[in-house]
Amino acid sequence: MDLKAYLGARRASVDEALERLLPADEAGGKVLKAMRYSLFAGGKRLRPILCLAGAEAVGGAPERVMFCACALEMIHTYSLIHDDLPAMDDDDFRRGLTTNHKVYGEGVAVLAGDGLLTQAMVLLSDPALSPGLDPARVLAAAQEVTRAAGYQGMVGGQGVDLASENLEPDLATVQFMHAMKTGALITASVTSGAILAGGGADQVEQLARYGRRIGLAFQIADDLLDLEGDPARLGKSVGADQAHGKMTYPAVVGVSQARTLGQDLVSEAARIAEGLGEGAEPLAHLARYIMERTH
Amino acid sequence: MDLKAYLGARRASVDEALERLLPADEAGGKVLKAMRYSLFAGGKRLRPILCLAGAEAVGGAPERVMFCACALEMIHTYSLIHDDLPAMDDDDFRRGLTTNHKVYGEGVAVLAGDGLLTQAMVLLSDPALSPGLDPARVLAAAQEVTRAAGYQGMVGGQGVDLASENLEPDLATVQFMHAMKTGALITASVTSGAILAGGGADQVEQLARYGRRIGLAFQIADDLLDLEGDPARLGKSVGADQAHGKMTYPAVVGVSQARTLGQDLVSEAARIAEGLGEGAEPLAHLARYIMERTH
Repeated sequence: MDLKAYLGARRASVDEALERLLPADEAGGKVLKAMRYSLFAGGKRLRPILCLAGAEAVGGAPERVMFCACALEMIHTYSLIHDDLPAMDDDDFRRGLTTNHKVYGEGVAVLAGDGLLTQAMVLLSDPALSPGLDPARVLAAAQEVTRAAGYQGMVGGQGVDLASENLEPDLATVQFMHAMKTGALITASVTSGAILAGGGADQVEQLARYGRRIGLAFQIADDLLDLEGDPARLGKSVGADQAHGKMTYPAVVGVSQARTLGQDLVSEAARIAEGLGEGAEPLAHLARYIMERTH
Repeated sequence: MDLKAYLGARRASVDEALERLLPADEAGGKVLKAMRYSLFAGGKRLRPILCLAGAEAVGGAPERVMFCACALEMIHTYSLIHDDLPAMDDDDFRRGLTTNHKVYGEGVAVLAGDGLLTQAMVLLSDPALSPGLDPARVLAAAQEVTRAAGYQGMVGGQGVDLASENLEPDLATVQFMHAMKTGALITASVTSGAILAGGGADQVEQLARYGRRIGLAFQIADDLLDLEGDPARLGKSVGADQAHGKMTYPAVVGVSQARTLGQDLVSEAARIAEGLGEGAEPLAHLARYIMERTH
């Protein structure tokens, strides 16, 4: 399959849906403007694409889980806005643009993040967006996504990240932190799509195994890009992890071993996807893409 | 009825449920500690009590909607943590205690708020917490609550609040801002309880009318307390609204007319509750209490 064309088409359909689900509105004031500024700053839409592919993998129609895909992108975007705040990572650039708080001020940036997180929950619970889907499955998907986003997932991981700045790096902490901070939401992206599309418990469990592996690999690739990437392509400054004394894979095991670990993980993930049959072919290709991306 | 005893008993049952739904856990780190610090800082639990009373008003069992009541308190607490941040209202005291960011630092305070907001949605979508309830009604309640919390409700209202500091006060802006910032979540507290407990559309609509009135009255009472209250009883400093150039009811219509407006609103709300029959008796008493409270 032509992964580049697939990603382009999926990204376009996600962008179109996001525009429909969070339309511009003068009455929305500065907070809505700030929410849309970061949401439409040109992300790769990896999490929504994984959600759509998760539905496809169990034989479902991707467009029926689009509301959940968009909720995932809103959660991801909120986390970037809050992580960039001066009290957190204090970043000035993101996705090639000035960060939210640099444009709108810190107060509005906090609210823009809050607004996106809340809007994700609005989408997940809107019956008009899930016609014909079993409400119990919609709740189960919302549970999967929100648990991954919360203090036992992404928020908790960011807390560990803050707490471990400038500490002696060790592999256990790095793995634990990244599994929470990045891995949980990436895993939930795949599984929520499959749950909504009627996937069985076995399929969802296989997709969770797939998700944990690409989630870790994604973070390893991110760490490597921060060391070796091209700032112009990345749209953000590089070397920030080192400057902040962040605990990263390359800092713990070295660049070469980190790359090998990442490649092993995506190979395992691809094999898991292949075992799920034809519908999971995009997931197999997506896994390999994780370690090949340049931004 | 003995409202004081009723409030005390309900507050105790809410506190017990919150403790069960967000237990201490050493593995949760500083973020969970910060979440619990603000959640157990001795709030009145008004929103959860309104949710339980909303269920009662339509003949339901309050304990079956406790998960939603607790979600509402988590959302309210998150909003306090973020509103107190230096980039927002920059407050040092809340509920008689040092504010979250003063104790844990700004980064952790942002994450604690994020964690509480997300945990609210975890509760709302957890099938184990709503056994026997219709999943479609659980989704409808989640929709009601999250819409009220989002950019078209509480988050949007806080945005208007930030944007209107030091502007010439006008009644339309004050009413619009407070309906969003405080009124929406208070209204959703009552209606979500009723929806979960099987209330009909007419009952829910009457309860929404009730909620909008007590929501506005609650904010008027808050504004008056900020002018005339006792800091020791309130557990926070007074006069902050004036110092921040905030747009308040007393600033627009004067103290005496603000008080009259508040009393008219709670009388109307009490009459609406009385029209709903015996189960809504606590709501009628709660309405009158709104303007009588001293903290």
